[in-house]
Amino acid sequence: MQSMSLVVIGSVAYDAIETPHGKCERTLGGSCTYIALSASYFTKTSIVAVVGDDFAAEDRALLASKSVDLDGLEHVPGKTFFWSGAYSADMNDRTTRCTDLNVFAEFNPKLPASYKKEPYLFLGNIQPDLQRGVQRQMNGVRFVGGDTMNYWISQAHDDLLNTIRGWDFLLINDSEARMLAGEYNLRKAADKILDLGPSTLVIKRGEYGAMLVRRDTLFMVPGYLLADVFDPTGAGDCFAGGFVGYLAERGFDLRNGSFDVRELHRAVIYGSVMGSFCCEQFGVERFRTLTREQIDERFGEFRRFTSF
Amino acid sequence: MQSMSLVVIGSVAYDAIETPHGKCERTLGGSCTYIALSASYFTKTSIVAVVGDDFAAEDRALLASKSVDLDGLEHVPGKTFFWSGAYSADMNDRTTRCTDLNVFAEFNPKLPASYKKEPYLFLGNIQPDLQRGVQRQMNGVRFVGGDTMNYWISQAHDDLLNTIRGWDFLLINDSEARMLAGEYNLRKAADKILDLGPSTLVIKRGEYGAMLVRRDTLFMVPGYLLADVFDPTGAGDCFAGGFVGYLAERGFDLRNGSFDVRELHRAVIYGSVMGSFCCEQFGVERFRTLTREQIDERFGEFRRFTSF
Repeated sequence: MQSMSLVVIGSVAYDAIETPHGKCERTLGGSCTYIALSASYFTKTSIVAVVGDDFAAEDRALLASKSVDLDGLEHVPGKTFFWSGAYSADMNDRTTRCTDLNVFAEFNPKLPASYKKEPYLFLGNIQPDLQRGVQRQMNGVRFVGGDTMNYWISQAHDDLLNTIRGWDFLLINDSEARMLAGEYNLRKAADKILDLGPSTLVIKRGEYGAMLVRRDTLFMVPGYLLADVFDPTGAGDCFAGGFVGYLAERGFDLRNGSFDVRELHRAVIYGSVMGSFCCEQFGVERFRTLTREQIDERFGEFRRFTSF
Repeated sequence: MQSMSLVVIGSVAYDAIETPHGKCERTLGGSCTYIALSASYFTKTSIVAVVGDDFAAEDRALLASKSVDLDGLEHVPGKTFFWSGAYSADMNDRTTRCTDLNVFAEFNPKLPASYKKEPYLFLGNIQPDLQRGVQRQMNGVRFVGGDTMNYWISQAHDDLLNTIRGWDFLLINDSEARMLAGEYNLRKAADKILDLGPSTLVIKRGEYGAMLVRRDTLFMVPGYLLADVFDPTGAGDCFAGGFVGYLAERGFDLRNGSFDVRELHRAVIYGSVMGSFCCEQFGVERFRTLTREQIDERFGEFRRFTSF
């Protein structure tokens, strides 16, 4: 199989983060940033996002150092999206202190011509109608899916349903899955969501791991047991990047009848691996030193601690 | 390997349970009951417990139908331990409405002579000094461990430490592990607990599964995804019964240098299987119809949904 390249849409932001381990006033963040950094270890990744004129050359350089294609990173006058949040002592709760959309408020993703024939598309958490608009700009996409959040599930419900109907996979967390399905039990919730369009549902469960549900398979993995969870910001997006990045690397083609469903299981493991690394340092810091060798080593660790 | 038989100490009780699925006013319960019913599918199991003169013949008959040895089930004047509790809508919280210790208040376990040479001992959650007293009555035990609870961790801390120092394994839930270690992070908490004596620590995480930690292995498994959690009462005890029962069946001998650590992993799976069945009906009801074949089939399901 030949590896395929990936287009990622989402936010590029600056974050102020406070955890029990310390705080930082301004660090590179945003869903698109984390997804792309994570996916870049597996496949050629191109991003579509918007930043203001305060976007630092060194942050652009970090993405460029991972060979992320930045042709679709639009620079406009104004300030970059800014988010500030604080974690509880046990890291299981997060309070948003402020969300300044800034230039992101007017974000209307336009794909560079060179992106339009890429086979893999990941639609990060933005308005469902914008996600749909991006998908329409693509020609011949082979594997498309994305993320959403509680806000769109409640405030743009029909729009969201129209959007995900055209997706191959949906990747959300457990509380979002329950909310979207209107069902607390996760097994039943998953079944209801599979009726909405995506043939593959991935549910992230934070420190408790993740699961993948399809009509033909169920896969579950516990979370990696980190001795120090330094900062969980971006872990879910890094999971997404590892999941879709690995499948793209493997040239996984869901629309080709002969695909191996076990590849989806392995993609969940790579997602878990990438999410776990993300938590080891503040913001995107871990990606400055992380190597593919370390990633594959942790994949092996997952195999050891789940084998019986 | 030859299978070994098991002695279980704990409570035999009557429970009143209310869940979102319904309620029952009086049903057989207690840690010893659940542990023994669960373990009885794997190995010869003998119990040590106390009941009052209200203990019903049909409840005795249920245990006897699983070939549980009842020589150590003491009948005394008075009422059997009674517990009443109610679950929250999502089943994740439980409120105790009443705990009437009754004859259990004066429980001082005495082992029948025929029990004293059994090789496997599981000490259910009772006062740590009583657990220690039982262990002292045994001769030549090969594998001993048990459970405890938050009450003993806070109210009988030194006593508990003296007790578990002599155990091969400790089987507790995640909040108890955090409390016992004085450490929120589970990986660090587990390391601290391994310094207290038991070479094997099993941490139950409710719907999120379980983990086993030793100096030479780490094993994690997600929880079984039930479409209907009818009543979680006793699930942790059934986990314990499956865990220790499977090891006893296999003749697993930790004190024999050549043991296979993978057997401990499989024991965690059998524990998870038994805990999942327990939740499918009220109280002990599921054990009236459950077969070993169904148990092994679900073990196979665990293998499928965790393989990659």
